[in-house]
Amino acid sequence: MVSTVQPTSGLDETSRLIAADKVIGSSVENMKGDNLGKIDEIMLDKVSGEIAYAVLKYGSFLGLGGKLFALPWDVLQYDLNRNAYVIDLPEAQLKNAPSFDESDWPDFGNRTFDKELHDYYGSRADWYL
Amino acid sequence: MVSTVQPTSGLDETSRLIAADKVIGSSVENMKGDNLGKIDEIMLDKVSGEIAYAVLKYGSFLGLGGKLFALPWDVLQYDLNRNAYVIDLPEAQLKNAPSFDESDWPDFGNRTFDKELHDYYGSRADWYL
Repeated sequence: MVSTVQPTSGLDETSRLIAADKVIGSSVENMKGDNLGKIDEIMLDKVSGEIAYAVLKYGSFLGLGGKLFALPWDVLQYDLNRNAYVIDLPEAQLKNAPSFDESDWPDFGNRTFDKELHDYYGSRADWYL
Repeated sequence: MVSTVQPTSGLDETSRLIAADKVIGSSVENMKGDNLGKIDEIMLDKVSGEIAYAVLKYGSFLGLGGKLFALPWDVLQYDLNRNAYVIDLPEAQLKNAPSFDESDWPDFGNRTFDKELHDYYGSRADWYL
């Protein structure tokens, strides 16, 4: 069952809120349960106060180890049972997604770049564009 | 000049976005420029993906050293010149604000608690309640 609701555990998490520090480092899986990697960073929109992207650092799955991917936040859902964020995208789409290196972060403020990324993942986060 | 726009500097910040890790640890000042403390944590709303609270850890100013305060995110504004977040609230209101200890975080999921906090600061973040 995919859900955006997480269990209450510890001081930095309530039934509705979660500490940013706790999201960073969380596991990301595909629908089959393969571990794709971990959330490396969260990019916040300064004006609206919304989460724009989760930056996913791929593990060895798909042969993309160490590569970084910016995922529009609404593409991720939390799975209560797996205790991980889940992406519902075909393997080929994940594998060919725009990626970047640790030392060369993209220009998130560039509207063309952002729009391409949102279109690629089918994000409905229209507030951002 | 108080502004929500920050300068571009480094890989983890663009003109519009900022990494959560970079917000955590930022200075918080009052309108007079007194340093109140630092942002200790950001609490994210799991469902909407919005920032609900910044948790401010007070420094020695006002004699509140070490105390934690949950500030509705819209109460903070970024000041480009000071390179700090600014709260526009009278000293007495800040001093008497609901606070908590590191070892005893409040129940943010409790609607009554949240409403009292939002009312106290005059937050307009009605989406949260």
